[in-house]
Amino acid sequence: PETKLPKVGTTIFTVMSQLAMEHGAVNLGQGFPDFDVPERLVQALDRAMREGRNQYAPMTGIPALRQAIAAKTERCYGHRPDADAEITVTSGASEAIFDAVLAVVGPGDEVIVLDPCYDCYEPAIDLAGGRAVHVPLDPHSFAPNWSRIRAAVTPKTRLLMINTPHNPSGAMFGEDDIARLTALLRDTGIYLLSDEVYEHIIFDGRRHESVLRYPELRQRAFVVSSFGKTYHCTGWKVGYCVAPPALSAEFRKVHQYNTFCTFTPAQFAFAEMIEAEPAHYEQLGAFYQAKRDRFRAQLLTTKLKPLPVPGGYFQLVDYSDVSDLDDIAFCRWLTIEKGVTAIPLSPFYETAPQGQRLARLCFAKNEGTLDAAVERLLKL
Amino acid sequence: PETKLPKVGTTIFTVMSQLAMEHGAVNLGQGFPDFDVPERLVQALDRAMREGRNQYAPMTGIPALRQAIAAKTERCYGHRPDADAEITVTSGASEAIFDAVLAVVGPGDEVIVLDPCYDCYEPAIDLAGGRAVHVPLDPHSFAPNWSRIRAAVTPKTRLLMINTPHNPSGAMFGEDDIARLTALLRDTGIYLLSDEVYEHIIFDGRRHESVLRYPELRQRAFVVSSFGKTYHCTGWKVGYCVAPPALSAEFRKVHQYNTFCTFTPAQFAFAEMIEAEPAHYEQLGAFYQAKRDRFRAQLLTTKLKPLPVPGGYFQLVDYSDVSDLDDIAFCRWLTIEKGVTAIPLSPFYETAPQGQRLARLCFAKNEGTLDAAVERLLKL
Ligand SMILES: CSCCC(=O)C(=O)O
Ligand SMILES: CSCCC(=O)C(=O)O
Repeated sequence: PETKLPKVGTTIFTVMSQLAMEHGAVNLGQGFPDFDVPERLVQALDRAMREGRNQYAPMTGIPALRQAIAAKTERCYGHRPDADAEITVTSGASEAIFDAVLAVVGPGDEVIVLDPCYDCYEPAIDLAGGRAVHVPLDPHSFAPNWSRIRAAVTPKTRLLMINTPHNPSGAMFGEDDIARLTALLRDTGIYLLSDEVYEHIIFDGRRHESVLRYPELRQRAFVVSSFGKTYHCTGWKVGYCVAPPALSAEFRKVHQYNTFCTFTPAQFAFAEMIEAEPAHYEQLGAFYQAKRDRFRAQLLTTKLKPLPVPGGYFQLVDYSDVSDLDDIAFCRWLTIEKGVTAIPLSPFYETAPQGQRLARLCFAKNEGTLDAAVERLLKL
Repeated sequence: PETKLPKVGTTIFTVMSQLAMEHGAVNLGQGFPDFDVPERLVQALDRAMREGRNQYAPMTGIPALRQAIAAKTERCYGHRPDADAEITVTSGASEAIFDAVLAVVGPGDEVIVLDPCYDCYEPAIDLAGGRAVHVPLDPHSFAPNWSRIRAAVTPKTRLLMINTPHNPSGAMFGEDDIARLTALLRDTGIYLLSDEVYEHIIFDGRRHESVLRYPELRQRAFVVSSFGKTYHCTGWKVGYCVAPPALSAEFRKVHQYNTFCTFTPAQFAFAEMIEAEPAHYEQLGAFYQAKRDRFRAQLLTTKLKPLPVPGGYFQLVDYSDVSDLDDIAFCRWLTIEKGVTAIPLSPFYETAPQGQRLARLCFAKNEGTLDAAVERLLKL
């Protein structure tokens, strides 16, 4: 058949996970924890199944979960979205991003994305008939370059997509970014999609600048998050979208004909967990900061140079002292020859910076896993 | 915002389920069982969680589940699809239908749908930039009218969507339909999407004419099914698509950027269940036939006239001896005034037949539920 997505191959995450498996490498590629889901969550899901919560959930998500999300959002960001009109539960943040793009982007529309960015943004835009306009983040700090973003705006710009904390770099929006973003969007009809799936993995006392804190931004925004990163269950695929009523209405039109609703027992489990154990997500930053600090100290003893990690669970490393290979070749070599799997950065770009020698390592792993990786990396 | 889906409101299933709840009606509307998921499935899911199967599954689905689907397909339809290249696990049949349409339908393409049809077909076509061309099924037998279908084919026809056993009527394709369909598609480039989610709910010794039985059809087809109907868990949202390698490749491009993958523990549970208890789906027809026969006998004592039900778990009734209201008004009245919720048929049509007085009742219910409904229906 002719293809609707000529640029799309298998995602780099799948490619590298398969390669890791084939070569028995320590897999620090695809972002997923190798430790356990909180016991309460497993118990609550089991209970929900046994209580017969196995049929269709409401298309928008079960009320208890939407209310828990509303309450949590208020506790975290000082704003309580309307659980009925503004919150929709989805089958992961991926589905939420896909639905939001399909809901507002049409043929001829332009969507500004900031490179490097997660690889699902552009295919959704293409399928909606739109065109992704790629604006690079700063190649060193991964901060948005607001004058370049402003220069990319045209009358066709329909949507701007942001991601904080940022995958792959861990960079976070500051208050200054919020001010520049607000000024940029003021008096335009441009929508905002804010991907905040790492919202609770924040280090060094920083504050997550959720778009939900800012009235002027959130009135035009789809804010997407997920429980996969917060509760160590990337395979449970429960996410959500917060958007004002009119945008939620459009979002739900797509969602209800895409997946319709999401695995019901997990919705009951998350509703219980969020309310019962706020300490879980409040302490998640400290939990991951300990991993980051330990891993970083170990990396400093290797030839890889770790970059700063303000948030998220990925560590970028500069490998230029080790190899002159391009990043895809380097990551393949590292997996096959050295037994450690990393993710190259170039698949996150339309045009990666010339000569960039960066790879991404996931530190959402037990100490034993990270130690095994470091032992191999010491031999570079 | 402008809307991309001007024709779409809230689905009739959600509307009627909400109305049922508000009025405490016996809900025979939205199609879902009110009895338990098999215990083995709950146990297997629980075990998968406790064994740590909580991270991303492969994008295509776990190998064990794809192999179980391949083996089951061979047992049922005498053809074994390739588990690696031809089977993709999705977050319900809905997602599979959505992905398949987005994978092959583009701006200007026409898609033939047979009315009445499930309400998710047309929005997917619209979002892909295509246009649904509605051809009515026979208003009495709900059989396809092959000469009308042939007359609807144009050079722009890209896809034909079929559904057997059929929702809402329960009608099933016969061998003659397969022959006509095969002749119609021969020497064209038209793809086929066959929605077979009721494949194991078949009555009176009939044979399910799965498209997967027929080499000439399956080489151009996306065949979609789901475990929700077979295992009494519509809220688990695990479905799949079987398609030849080239079509699966296009399908997966969409799927990997839509939901990426599906709730991992349930995939392990279904893989185990399918292999361990083939008797479950082999006996499902008999299980539902007993319900159908009992419910039908009861309905014959009311003023509603039940239509034949060859497969599926819905009973159409002609209510013309009870009311002259149109079907939406009748179903609202039946819920609010009589305490029984049914689904009107007109939302399944672009243009419903003038004066049609049919409503759909779901009999995937315990005897107590059906008895309570019948008691109320006796008072019509
Ligand atoms: C959906 S696979 C990718 C997982 C992830 O978020 C990442 O590794 O960046
Ligand atoms: C997704 S809600 C609709 C359930 C169903 O298949 C039906 O009632 O027809």
